[in-house]
Amino acid sequence: MSLRLGEIAEALGGCLHGDAQVCIERLAPLETAGANALSFLSNPRYQQQLAASQAACVIVAPAMADSARARGACIVAEDPYVYFARATQLWKRRTAPPLRAGVHPSAVVSADAQVHATACVGPLCVVERGACIGAGTVLHPRVTVGENCHIGERCVLHSGAVIGADGFGFASERGTWVKIEQLGAVRIGDDVEIGANTCIDRGALDDTVIEDGVKIDNLVQIGHNVRVGRHSAMAGCVGVAGSAQIGERCTFGGGAIVLGHLSVANDVHVSAATVVTRSLARPGQYTGMFPIDDNARWEKNAATLKQLHSLRERIKALEGLLQNNKIERS
Amino acid sequence: MSLRLGEIAEALGGCLHGDAQVCIERLAPLETAGANALSFLSNPRYQQQLAASQAACVIVAPAMADSARARGACIVAEDPYVYFARATQLWKRRTAPPLRAGVHPSAVVSADAQVHATACVGPLCVVERGACIGAGTVLHPRVTVGENCHIGERCVLHSGAVIGADGFGFASERGTWVKIEQLGAVRIGDDVEIGANTCIDRGALDDTVIEDGVKIDNLVQIGHNVRVGRHSAMAGCVGVAGSAQIGERCTFGGGAIVLGHLSVANDVHVSAATVVTRSLARPGQYTGMFPIDDNARWEKNAATLKQLHSLRERIKALEGLLQNNKIERS
Amino acid sequence: MSLRLGEIAEALGGCLHGDAQVCIERLAPLETAGANALSFLSNPRYQQQLAASQAACVIVAPAMADSARARGACIVAEDPYVYFARATQLWKRRTAPPLRAGVHPSAVVSADAQVHATACVGPLCVVERGACIGAGTVLHPRVTVGENCHIGERCVLHSGAVIGADGFGFASERGTWVKIEQLGAVRIGDDVEIGANTCIDRGALDDTVIEDGVKIDNLVQIGHNVRVGRHSAMAGCVGVAGSAQIGERCTFGGGAIVLGHLSVANDVHVSAATVVTRSLARPGQYTGMFPIDDNARWEKNAATLKQLHSLRERIKALEGLLQNNKIERS
Repeated sequence: MSLRLGEIAEALGGCLHGDAQVCIERLAPLETAGANALSFLSNPRYQQQLAASQAACVIVAPAMADSARARGACIVAEDPYVYFARATQLWKRRTAPPLRAGVHPSAVVSADAQVHATACVGPLCVVERGACIGAGTVLHPRVTVGENCHIGERCVLHSGAVIGADGFGFASERGTWVKIEQLGAVRIGDDVEIGANTCIDRGALDDTVIEDGVKIDNLVQIGHNVRVGRHSAMAGCVGVAGSAQIGERCTFGGGAIVLGHLSVANDVHVSAATVVTRSLARPGQYTGMFPIDDNARWEKNAATLKQLHSLRERIKALEGLLQNNKIERS
Repeated sequence: MSLRLGEIAEALGGCLHGDAQVCIERLAPLETAGANALSFLSNPRYQQQLAASQAACVIVAPAMADSARARGACIVAEDPYVYFARATQLWKRRTAPPLRAGVHPSAVVSADAQVHATACVGPLCVVERGACIGAGTVLHPRVTVGENCHIGERCVLHSGAVIGADGFGFASERGTWVKIEQLGAVRIGDDVEIGANTCIDRGALDDTVIEDGVKIDNLVQIGHNVRVGRHSAMAGCVGVAGSAQIGERCTFGGGAIVLGHLSVANDVHVSAATVVTRSLARPGQYTGMFPIDDNARWEKNAATLKQLHSLRERIKALEGLLQNNKIERS
Repeated sequence: MSLRLGEIAEALGGCLHGDAQVCIERLAPLETAGANALSFLSNPRYQQQLAASQAACVIVAPAMADSARARGACIVAEDPYVYFARATQLWKRRTAPPLRAGVHPSAVVSADAQVHATACVGPLCVVERGACIGAGTVLHPRVTVGENCHIGERCVLHSGAVIGADGFGFASERGTWVKIEQLGAVRIGDDVEIGANTCIDRGALDDTVIEDGVKIDNLVQIGHNVRVGRHSAMAGCVGVAGSAQIGERCTFGGGAIVLGHLSVANDVHVSAATVVTRSLARPGQYTGMFPIDDNARWEKNAATLKQLHSLRERIKALEGLLQNNKIERS
């Protein structure tokens, strides 16, 4: 498959400098792009790679237009990375056959579920009674959507995702557990993407809510009654415990954990493997992660860490002693 | 759906103060409960919410009976949270159609497996030869139960759970791995709940064992030859490495990890994201987690942490110096 | 099922000392082996267990041959653990019916996929168009292999694994996310094992690559464009972010996380729950993990940790003071 540069610029906009007839056969990063590839420069730090690149054409920001034109063909766009994203979408449309709307014959869809005519329910999916799948939404193979759960429009659910399993709720009674039946459901907004084998539990009394535009990676666990605000994103292996309230436009690095019943403000960014143990009321970047080290050094530091509080006391004592010392000497 | 207060008290016990004819249409938390809702107060700390609540009726402990009656209708019960749990079960029975016993036609069940007539095997489950599913047990959609694995009575396995994949065992031979075939199986007791996409591996030589009443959340990994004692509970994303022995009535917060071949005593509680690196012989709460902080502060502290051992040496040196100092001065 | 010692030695080699007619009914660890069991001693530390063991026969290294013969029957082999691994394979072949090659009728395999005649595609698997499954490879129940993904020969994919879901790539545009279509695929070499519910994402532009002999446990997340070198192994719940390059013969403990775009050299060993935040250019063992402690002590130390940088400053100040002090006194 190939597209002429002129066709790309016509489809996606931007200002093309160079021969519109040149054929592009693939998209590629700057450093590995060959003479048949369209590439992009989104970070000015990589400007040196621009000059050296073999790419047929490079997508650049206006500030880079001159250096890019000196090298060869380029497309000037306000945001080269977004332009590149749209180029991947164009590529996908041209190379992959469109997903066929409808329910694959191997899927098990309740007669009491509502699947929009333009939605696509893949092989071996299960959609239970009362569930609702919106227009243009794609369920890849082997997705489960439980009873009464609602998926919005233009969502993508990857293989193995489980929407609407029971939240984890039990009351303790004399050393055994009494199940709290989970009477809520899951409501997922529009333009949401849910990764492979990710689980979003139904609410205990009210619903678990994933708002519009949220993007969730693979193997993420979202507990019951959580709310994730619009356009927030979570990388793989994140866990969010029950009733946590996550703001809009937040991001969570891989393996981060949010404890239950906490509130996280809009525009909070949590680093990978960080545990959110208290509500975060202000935007910003938050981190808590033991720094990696050579194992022998880690062992020494970790052992000392277990005495850290007493080290502080010893510092205090030293400070007191010197304080007295000075007074005595004066 | 609605139930009269009198019907609820008749079904679940407790002492009803108020009009037995009042209709309850839902269960709700104190703060959002409307005039058609039954709520509960399980933690005396939330007593102030009691007075302000619009709930039609509130489940309270005997000690709260007077304040509750001053507000309006109430049900007095020994343990309001357990009573509430049973109320959710009553609600579920009344609102959801009962799960139909039997094997869904889309499930793939070996002719050599035993499924009790009252068990329910959901759509697209796989039950392999020699497996055994006990009375009243429910397999939600897309559960795998591997060869010779045994699931007890009244268990609930959520969608995507995999019981009896091979344990992770390899012998190293000149830089490559030789597979140790996993000849054991998995034995799960009665009244066990297993979360969505959770994996419990088969044993290498003997069986992996999950005892009665254990509750395991989503996306949990249980390695080969682990034993989890009665009524222990594990939140989402926990990982337990091979041959770990977990006691009874233990709890594990989300993302906790237990290393292999360790023993954890009864009544041990491990905090979220904590790594159990040694056997824990005594009951109690255990934690190991880097505290979250503003990223800039974290960076400073983490950098210093890598010199912690040498800081201790510097404190020691200062102490020695002052010691000598004092001696000289005396 | 039982095998005579002579049959075992004939099949697997090694030097048998003892009665070749003795019947072995199971394989067992030294401490629980009964008179019908074959056991092994791979770690000289457990030598005391050897004398006490009831095993019918013990696999030992040449250095242990004398003590083993003093106890009873033994098989002397260069590497007893590898010998034991091969014994489990022998056992499996004799006890379990061989997996039948071919595609289970409930699996959904695209007409445009290539499945080798000797491969085994289990119940309710999905193999999409353009995918390729090599000779002797086994897909356990409910595995997804996405479009154009390539699985080598003699691989084992456990239940629920998802190969080739979209990598997690979005460009940010005015607070919303624009999807970067993932145009690459996944290429898995020969003799690779992939655990239950593990996810390996397809590449953005190029492929994600898992080289020959790699072993990956359950619930592991491998991001787009990652490369995992030959014979590396990853325990459960590991997460590897996009574009990380992992060397050969590396091992990762459970719950370890590798951040994106990093390089890890050959023969690097990362401890459980450790976060790799920088490239590791040298072989060795690396660790970063908060030590577990009694919760009360942890709270004190964690609180102090948040002042660690200022404690260092206070130590510096004390050192300065004493330095001056000495100068003044001299």
